[in-house]
Amino acid sequence: MQLIIERGALLRTLGHIHSVVERRNTIPILSNVLIEARDGHLHLTATDLDLAIVESVPANIIQGGATTASAHTLFDIVRKLPEGTDVELIYKSEDSGRMSLSAGRSRFQLQCLPREDFPVIADGGMPHSFALSADALRNLIDKTRFAISTEETRYYLNGIYLHAADSSGVAVLRGVATDGHRLARFEVPLPDGAAGIPGAIVPRKTVNEVRKLIEETEGDVSIALSDTKIRFAFDDVVLTSKLIDGSFPEYSRVIPTQNDKLLEVDPKLFAAAVDRVSTISTDKTRAVKLILDQDRITLSVTSPDNGSAVEEVAASYRSGPMEIGFNAKYLLDITQQIESDVIRLVLADSLAPTLVRDQGDDATLYVLMPMRV
Amino acid sequence: MQLIIERGALLRTLGHIHSVVERRNTIPILSNVLIEARDGHLHLTATDLDLAIVESVPANIIQGGATTASAHTLFDIVRKLPEGTDVELIYKSEDSGRMSLSAGRSRFQLQCLPREDFPVIADGGMPHSFALSADALRNLIDKTRFAISTEETRYYLNGIYLHAADSSGVAVLRGVATDGHRLARFEVPLPDGAAGIPGAIVPRKTVNEVRKLIEETEGDVSIALSDTKIRFAFDDVVLTSKLIDGSFPEYSRVIPTQNDKLLEVDPKLFAAAVDRVSTISTDKTRAVKLILDQDRITLSVTSPDNGSAVEEVAASYRSGPMEIGFNAKYLLDITQQIESDVIRLVLADSLAPTLVRDQGDDATLYVLMPMRV
Repeated sequence: MQLIIERGALLRTLGHIHSVVERRNTIPILSNVLIEARDGHLHLTATDLDLAIVESVPANIIQGGATTASAHTLFDIVRKLPEGTDVELIYKSEDSGRMSLSAGRSRFQLQCLPREDFPVIADGGMPHSFALSADALRNLIDKTRFAISTEETRYYLNGIYLHAADSSGVAVLRGVATDGHRLARFEVPLPDGAAGIPGAIVPRKTVNEVRKLIEETEGDVSIALSDTKIRFAFDDVVLTSKLIDGSFPEYSRVIPTQNDKLLEVDPKLFAAAVDRVSTISTDKTRAVKLILDQDRITLSVTSPDNGSAVEEVAASYRSGPMEIGFNAKYLLDITQQIESDVIRLVLADSLAPTLVRDQGDDATLYVLMPMRV
Repeated sequence: MQLIIERGALLRTLGHIHSVVERRNTIPILSNVLIEARDGHLHLTATDLDLAIVESVPANIIQGGATTASAHTLFDIVRKLPEGTDVELIYKSEDSGRMSLSAGRSRFQLQCLPREDFPVIADGGMPHSFALSADALRNLIDKTRFAISTEETRYYLNGIYLHAADSSGVAVLRGVATDGHRLARFEVPLPDGAAGIPGAIVPRKTVNEVRKLIEETEGDVSIALSDTKIRFAFDDVVLTSKLIDGSFPEYSRVIPTQNDKLLEVDPKLFAAAVDRVSTISTDKTRAVKLILDQDRITLSVTSPDNGSAVEEVAASYRSGPMEIGFNAKYLLDITQQIESDVIRLVLADSLAPTLVRDQGDDATLYVLMPMRV
């Protein structure tokens, strides 16, 4: 293998894929990136056995071939090379298993492992495929991923549940995430080809890698799906991931439909007040009490160690007085995703789940469980 | 106690002092800041028993008095208040030991501890005092603090040794730091009043707090000194610190005087090359080998796990060929402080301490111990 590639192009590619590689690996080959030179392109692959990213970038291929080398070392070296230099990679199997990297006056000899040892996530056929705009996929992720559970014992909640559904007679593609205390649901009109897809729980790490790749994508992302795997194809990058093997709970039962008390408030003012009063709290749960009265919310927090905090926020509220408690962090997570000037809370009573919506956004719905305060 | 102060002024003051307060304290009062209202000023004091910072800021004092409250909670609250609001603090001892803080529509009740319990670092008389320009003090710290030892067992190296000395017949004030592997020395002409000062080892935390306060200071800093304490007086802030109770080693013996091989190189090019080749190293010591030849340095690093790296850098060198190894991090720490276009290494042989100087800066001197490579 012998090839020449401009440092910036190589750095961008390594930047996309090296974060898949865990810093500590008990299996040495998983620290490496697969480097393949063929068809006028350099193809780089990184994997953690659950997830693989392949990126292809044009390069001056002098001789085809392939090997594997440490992903983080390679990334760090290329990052430190002067801008604009050409990088030459040479691997000859007779060279005692080392790849040489030359750029400017620097020459590196990198320890390699055979390409045959590099694990491949078998594709195994993807019967379903559809396209989603980068914008829609970005929204689907941003509006839901904060609610993904981090409890490893509830592994079936450690991702976004992607599935086809019926929303008041309209066929939609939905993403849902929940940790049992809150739920976030986002939907878009069902894309062509997505009818009949199996429900897929996309793991958190895959979600986060996809989200990073969207940043540099315009246009559509091609998504292909089987019962056990999902594949996202961007312009020059293909990400293939295993799905979480579990049953996502029947979430629609927790979405309240009979709530009748409407509270509307400016999300920025509301979030700032929640953030301020929760400062006084020292424990992790950070419960904040909302006392609702005619067009007014009084937020309060009491901490046995630290003292107490009270703040009033103007709101639109016409139902009877009530008190309800929420986790301050959960309120802040949701208000951060509100893009219009009005966050709408639809309440029943102080013990029942509360529905939260963005006034300007019918695609998204949140459910928040109250806390006893 | 009752006073009103603009949020920005209070935040700036708390910002200066709250970092002295450790996040975890076994003694509750040390988590608090002393709040005193008198003479048209709010006086805030924070301490960790080794170091105390007092800052005074004009405020509308309605009634004098004093109490103590959690430094970090107070800082977080004030930080989150809207810009430009007035903050009112009220403490009445009959109010069950709580201070009220009101701003806009927010009201906080903060748990207090009696001001009598707040520890004071007794001044005890400071027989020596002199002034140093903020610029000189900044340089003294920046050029030396990276060499302060972090080994707790060598507590007498855990600070900058400040003392009066004779430099080729000129009286100077010197700061010296060393960790046994490298040494940094900075000197300025001895200020009036500094003749006969006792040698003082200023602890690292004090050095770092002083460095932060210099950022907002122009003009002179007043320094007062006794055998056990040092005091830095800025415009509105006074920092008093205990000194490290130990003997700083007789450092001048490790400064080589007979070295005769002169190597001159561009510090930026040299640092970039050292940084690049050391990427290949996986161990902590990160030894880099320098092979010196006529007007050329060849840097090389070999790692049994990762491979090897070689890079050439153009330099000015006319003595005989030699090889010497250094810790890459130590080389980078020093080159970062070089302000001119030439870093000058004066070498003897591959086992002897090397003298390092900045071509444009006679005030600073570094010594670097070689490593076996």
